[in-house]
Amino acid sequence: MTQIIRKALDQHQDDKEKLFQEFLSFLRMPSVSNSNEHKEDMLKTADFLVKKLSDIGFQHAESFPTGRHPIVYAEYVVDPEKPTILLYGHYDVQPTDPLDEWRSAPFEPHLEGDYLYARGASDMKGQIWATISALQSVLQSSDLAINVKYLIEGEEEIGSPSLAGFMEEHKSMLACDFVLNPDAGMIAPDKPTIVYALRGLAYFELKITGPKSDLHSGSFGGVVANPANVLSRLIAAMHDNKGKVMLPGFYDDVREITENESLELSRLGIDENFYKKISGVPNLGGEEDFDPIERVGARPTLDVNGLYSGFIEKGAKTIIPAFALAKISCRLVPDQDPQKVLIGFRKFLEEQVPSSVIWELKLMSGAPAYIAGEETPGLEAFKKALKATWNVDPVLKREGGSIPVATEMKEILGVDSIITGFGLPDDQIHSPNERLHLPTQQKGVEALIRFFLGF
Amino acid sequence: MTQIIRKALDQHQDDKEKLFQEFLSFLRMPSVSNSNEHKEDMLKTADFLVKKLSDIGFQHAESFPTGRHPIVYAEYVVDPEKPTILLYGHYDVQPTDPLDEWRSAPFEPHLEGDYLYARGASDMKGQIWATISALQSVLQSSDLAINVKYLIEGEEEIGSPSLAGFMEEHKSMLACDFVLNPDAGMIAPDKPTIVYALRGLAYFELKITGPKSDLHSGSFGGVVANPANVLSRLIAAMHDNKGKVMLPGFYDDVREITENESLELSRLGIDENFYKKISGVPNLGGEEDFDPIERVGARPTLDVNGLYSGFIEKGAKTIIPAFALAKISCRLVPDQDPQKVLIGFRKFLEEQVPSSVIWELKLMSGAPAYIAGEETPGLEAFKKALKATWNVDPVLKREGGSIPVATEMKEILGVDSIITGFGLPDDQIHSPNERLHLPTQQKGVEALIRFFLGF
Repeated sequence: MTQIIRKALDQHQDDKEKLFQEFLSFLRMPSVSNSNEHKEDMLKTADFLVKKLSDIGFQHAESFPTGRHPIVYAEYVVDPEKPTILLYGHYDVQPTDPLDEWRSAPFEPHLEGDYLYARGASDMKGQIWATISALQSVLQSSDLAINVKYLIEGEEEIGSPSLAGFMEEHKSMLACDFVLNPDAGMIAPDKPTIVYALRGLAYFELKITGPKSDLHSGSFGGVVANPANVLSRLIAAMHDNKGKVMLPGFYDDVREITENESLELSRLGIDENFYKKISGVPNLGGEEDFDPIERVGARPTLDVNGLYSGFIEKGAKTIIPAFALAKISCRLVPDQDPQKVLIGFRKFLEEQVPSSVIWELKLMSGAPAYIAGEETPGLEAFKKALKATWNVDPVLKREGGSIPVATEMKEILGVDSIITGFGLPDDQIHSPNERLHLPTQQKGVEALIRFFLGF
Repeated sequence: MTQIIRKALDQHQDDKEKLFQEFLSFLRMPSVSNSNEHKEDMLKTADFLVKKLSDIGFQHAESFPTGRHPIVYAEYVVDPEKPTILLYGHYDVQPTDPLDEWRSAPFEPHLEGDYLYARGASDMKGQIWATISALQSVLQSSDLAINVKYLIEGEEEIGSPSLAGFMEEHKSMLACDFVLNPDAGMIAPDKPTIVYALRGLAYFELKITGPKSDLHSGSFGGVVANPANVLSRLIAAMHDNKGKVMLPGFYDDVREITENESLELSRLGIDENFYKKISGVPNLGGEEDFDPIERVGARPTLDVNGLYSGFIEKGAKTIIPAFALAKISCRLVPDQDPQKVLIGFRKFLEEQVPSSVIWELKLMSGAPAYIAGEETPGLEAFKKALKATWNVDPVLKREGGSIPVATEMKEILGVDSIITGFGLPDDQIHSPNERLHLPTQQKGVEALIRFFLGF
């Protein structure tokens, strides 16, 4: 290990306790982006990051207002001749409901063994903090081997509505050779992971309207089509018995994975039991004809995210509901187009919806899938840093989740992203009791130190 | 018209205005029975009725506490030798949600032309008030031609959990020759209606549980069966394409209606347009092979009353929900048995639910259908009173709604019920903006005066 790396790692040992305390304050900020309720908290969180980045030595750090929540941007130029990396992060977090399923308050970090429980601990404040910690140790012990630009948005969990516009507006400011995006995770604590493909997303709201108001189910049951029953029939018809999605043309543009890829994926050792264990389901679902790992990484899906109709409180109310609503989202793979999925969805409804109700479909947000080029700059250096830290070759995988920003950065800034991260599959992100495995985050810091010095 | 009837009708003209003001105070009481929130209001409403019945001359009036909400009982014996009628009513009302769809506050009665808008105005405080008004006018102008017992419960909208026990306990107190139950309605303002058959009810809660908590739909979409999708498939499978209910054995005990009945029903002139107009749906649903009026009166149904899963607030949340819940109720006809329906429902689920989720089914409440005997005492007298008031023969119909109390009174007290009422199909009972057509209620008072004097 080179001298400067050793120095930086020692430096980190000294900073560690203070950094952890600051991390806790970061986690205490309820930076939920999907409502206006936390607008103030979002501003505070952005300012907190601006201050921290200046404190560790960034020459420029600023909070840019947007239509909703500010974007934090900072840069450190060590030498204009050197390559430049753009770090990406998001400081916003998912909502906390259902709140009563949390064993500790979501914004009061709670330590239990190696795990730190808090909303955003893994997705992705813990990842941002690993990066900031590494940068701090390097800047205090020596200097960066690469120019660093850091962009941290506050709207990722609501589909990054302001980011694309911001990047268009500040192309030259954001100019870089490649992106490091630690918003993905590892498949296991001993398997450092780099994601080379991500699924896209098309998020819909479907509303089925029947009678002008709720009706007495006795006086009208049998003659009025029940919007909740009709919606159920429609959702049922969206899959066949083998788990295939039945929206017209849904699979037309799906890029099949290569022999080699499917071999790589099978090497990950992610099998049925893996998914059963972390999800707690008795048995898996999905497309029969594909392995679980391929179903998550390389196949598109259609899932109901929310369902509402009629009377859902305690007790009984005998009504035929006036309407029924479903939030439905499709995970997309290369080369599907959200707009084409929308067209197929409309076609499906035109064919399937009975004349006894009225339907309304809205595309709330959409992003195509992402797949990285083989020759991403910095990729080799990052692999080296991971291997030096974990003493194993990092695994390459396709991620089931969506990171639309990777696609947008490719389109707008013309650069590929190294998508990685130090969260684990059972971190329960987007769920109650989200947590972070601290020893893995720690290893992440070390890998990032090596990376920032390894050019 | 006999002298005493004329006198009573005149008396009513004098009492009218004061009675209307008292009716408004009755409607202002938020006597919602399905939660404990209104326990106090329920007590006040019961006391209000006890006081009113004593005031108009009932020799005995009392409020009996029950497990939930008190039962009001009062009696007036004119001559032990004379026949005795038991009047039935319920002072509880449906919940008011969705509150924002009300054009005026549900418990602040609002007069608009001939209509009085308020929760309970039609179902059934307006019916109780018509009865009390008629009794008052008769008692102040002459005397009743029949002994009257009056039972008013406060739990009808939650399935009358205390009533059966109360009747068992007070069989002799409640002993009577027949029951007058004005909790049904008329098919049109010019068509006084007597209901000879009612549908029963079986109310279920079905819960489908998948992962141990909400999951990220990106990381797990494609391998974890989505409980909301599974629930939708199950609900869809509960009907075939012709609208038949597919629960095993569901139709086994259904009593076919006679040629004569179906002829009678078709005479009511209730056609597709009638139901389309009052419900506001573009087209009807239900069993293709039956006329609308038969589908409502003589055929069993299965309706979703409520549906919940995952994220239903504004915005987007990309989760696979941990569970999905449906409130489902079946309207039953003679001679279906709620317990048998439950058994069929369980069988259906055992066959249909995939091994990727866990199901749970609860029967929340159940009551068989009711069909009256031809020779119900008082029936002829009541028909005469209706004809004298509307100058047309009353229509006989089957009601789609459930009045379990009629069945229980037959079982426990051994008496038939004359089921009638002066509400109209477009009163929007159980819905926002429930209303009462005052001229029809007024006619009801006159008919009841004739009836109480007509023995």
